[in-house]
Amino acid sequence: MPSDERSAHAPISESDLVEIIKQRLNAGGSVPAGEVGIGDDAAVLQFDPSHIVLTADAMVDGVHFLSESMSWHDIGWKCIVSNQSDIAAMGAIPEHAVLTLAIPATTSVGDLEDLLEGVIGALDTYSGRLVGGDTVASDNIILSVSMTGRLVDPIRPLTRNSALPGQQIAVSGPLGGSAGGLMVLNNPTDTDAASPLLAAHFRPSPRVDMAEVLVKSGVSCAMDISDGLLIDLERICLASGVDAVINADSVPIFEALTERFGDEALELALTGGEDYELLFVADADAIASVDASSGCHVIGEIQPSGAGGGKITVLDDVGDPIQFEAKGWDHFAR
Amino acid sequence: MPSDERSAHAPISESDLVEIIKQRLNAGGSVPAGEVGIGDDAAVLQFDPSHIVLTADAMVDGVHFLSESMSWHDIGWKCIVSNQSDIAAMGAIPEHAVLTLAIPATTSVGDLEDLLEGVIGALDTYSGRLVGGDTVASDNIILSVSMTGRLVDPIRPLTRNSALPGQQIAVSGPLGGSAGGLMVLNNPTDTDAASPLLAAHFRPSPRVDMAEVLVKSGVSCAMDISDGLLIDLERICLASGVDAVINADSVPIFEALTERFGDEALELALTGGEDYELLFVADADAIASVDASSGCHVIGEIQPSGAGGGKITVLDDVGDPIQFEAKGWDHFAR
Repeated sequence: MPSDERSAHAPISESDLVEIIKQRLNAGGSVPAGEVGIGDDAAVLQFDPSHIVLTADAMVDGVHFLSESMSWHDIGWKCIVSNQSDIAAMGAIPEHAVLTLAIPATTSVGDLEDLLEGVIGALDTYSGRLVGGDTVASDNIILSVSMTGRLVDPIRPLTRNSALPGQQIAVSGPLGGSAGGLMVLNNPTDTDAASPLLAAHFRPSPRVDMAEVLVKSGVSCAMDISDGLLIDLERICLASGVDAVINADSVPIFEALTERFGDEALELALTGGEDYELLFVADADAIASVDASSGCHVIGEIQPSGAGGGKITVLDDVGDPIQFEAKGWDHFAR
Repeated sequence: MPSDERSAHAPISESDLVEIIKQRLNAGGSVPAGEVGIGDDAAVLQFDPSHIVLTADAMVDGVHFLSESMSWHDIGWKCIVSNQSDIAAMGAIPEHAVLTLAIPATTSVGDLEDLLEGVIGALDTYSGRLVGGDTVASDNIILSVSMTGRLVDPIRPLTRNSALPGQQIAVSGPLGGSAGGLMVLNNPTDTDAASPLLAAHFRPSPRVDMAEVLVKSGVSCAMDISDGLLIDLERICLASGVDAVINADSVPIFEALTERFGDEALELALTGGEDYELLFVADADAIASVDASSGCHVIGEIQPSGAGGGKITVLDDVGDPIQFEAKGWDHFAR
C-alpha cells in the first residue's frame, strides 16, 4: 500500500490484514447495489438463477505446494484456479469467492499483497469476485477457498454419474505439464527457469471457457483433471457404474513434456495432477460438436461393467494393456 | 461405521475419508430433486430468494482450540456454530455448508466420525446442511467452513455500518461464559468437569433464533460477538462512524462466571470471545419490540463521534470510566 507508512516487510496485525484486503478490493470497483461486501459478518450476494453451484478447495504448504519454491502470487493464483476449475467442471461460471487465509503471524505486508494480486489476478482473468473470508494465524500456510458459480443452463449441471457405455471419453487439452514442472523443480541440476513446464505448474489455467461449450454441445458428464487423468476417470466410472478403455496414443501430451522427458511423458500425462483440463464423456455427435467449436481430444470409450464399475484399461498402439504404478494423487497416501 | 470392517482406530485414506462423509450424510436423507450433493466437483443448490448470504470461518489447532483438551465432536460443532452465528448476524437463516478438513494423515476413522457427528449435530440443531468440501492432509488440524444463508427479508440484511447516534445498544444474552470455560480449562487445579462454563466454551449456541426476531422488530444493525463485546462493538462503531457508551452494570454476565470469578467476571464478559450472542443497535421502540418477543439486554447508547468513530467508553455504577487492558481477541497479536 503506497498510500500509508506500512513497510512491505513489516509483519501484519489482524486489523491491518483486513484493511489491506479491503483496500485492494475497493481498488477493483465498488459493491453492486443491494449487496454487502467485505467487512461485515458475511457477504450478501445477488443471484440470477434459482440454482447456484458451491465448492471448496484448499491448498496446504508442504502438501500442495512448497512455500520455499513458490511465490506468494502463484500460491494465491493456484488456490483460486483450482476452485474455478471445479465450478467450470459443473457447467457453471465462477461468481463469488470467500478466502480463508491461515498464515504465520510473521507474514509481511508485501507478501500478503503479492498473494492478493495472485488471487485477484486469477479472478479477474477467469471470472469471479472476492467477497469475504476469514484470517487466522497459523504456523503452516493454508489457503482455503469456497466459490459459487452460475450454471450455464440452470437445469443441466455437468455431473460425474452420467457416463454411459458406448460414449466417447475426451479431454479439453494437453496433459502432464504441471507434473513435468514439478519434476523440473525437484531436480536441482535443472535450472531452466523459463520452462513452459514450470509455467504450467505455477500458473495453471482453468477451462472456464469450456463450461458453456460443453453444455451447449449437449455434454452432461464432466469433471476437471486435478489429481490425474486415470484417478479422475476412475471417479467418473465409479459414479456412473461403468468401465473405460483409453488409447495411449490418443492422449494429448503437453509439448515440452515429451521434449524433456521422452518415454516418461505418457505416464506423467496419465497420472500427473493439477492440469485443470476438463475430462468429459458424451455421445459421438456431442463430442463432434465440441470439437468443431473449440477443439478437444477423444482418448477412449466407456464400456459396460461386469462389476460395480471403475476399471480403467490403457491400451498401447498394438492394443496391449499398459500398467502404471500409480493412478494419481492421494493426499492421504503415505 | 458399524456396517463395514474398518476399525474406529484405523488411520484413513482419502477415498475412505470421502466415503465416510458420504455415508454419514446419506444417513440424514437424500439430496433434493434438481440438486447435486457430495461427490461431484461442486454442489448444485436451489435458492429461493434472489439474494444469498455467504461467509467463511476457520478454526486452527493451537490458535482457536487445543486438540489435546477438546473432543473431535466439539471441534466439529464449534466450527459450524461460528459460521451459523455469522449468518444469523446478517439477519439470515443458515442453509448450506462446505467443510475443508485439514487433518493429519494419521487421524483415525473413529475420530473423523466424532468430528462429523459434531458438524452434523450443530447443523441439525441450528439449521443448515453439509453439501460438500475438500479433504487435505496437514500436520496441524484446521477446519475451514463456508456457509450460505437465506435472508429473513431479502432486501434487509443486518449490517455493521448502520448504527446512529441516540440509538440503544443491546445484546441477546449473557456474556463471558466461554472465556470463563477457557480459564477453568487452563487451571490444572480446577477439575470441575461439569461446570456450565466448560459447556459454554466447548458447545456454544449460535442465536439463529434471533435473526427473524431482529429483522421483524425493525433492527438493521447487528453483528455476532465472536472476539469480545468491546472489540466487536468497536467494529460496529468504526463501520458506522460513531462512538458508544456502555454501562457496566447493565451488561448481562454468565451466571456461573460471577460465582466462580467474582470481580474478574465483568472484564471476562466485556472482553471474552466466542459467546456467539448477537450485538445489535436500534431505536428504543425496535429494541422494546425485540425485548417483548424474546428478551434482550440494553447495555448502552450510540453517540456522535468527533473523529472517525470507534471510541468505546465503559462507565461504572457512579458514571466513572473503567479501563481494560485488552478489548478482545486479535488472532495475529503476539
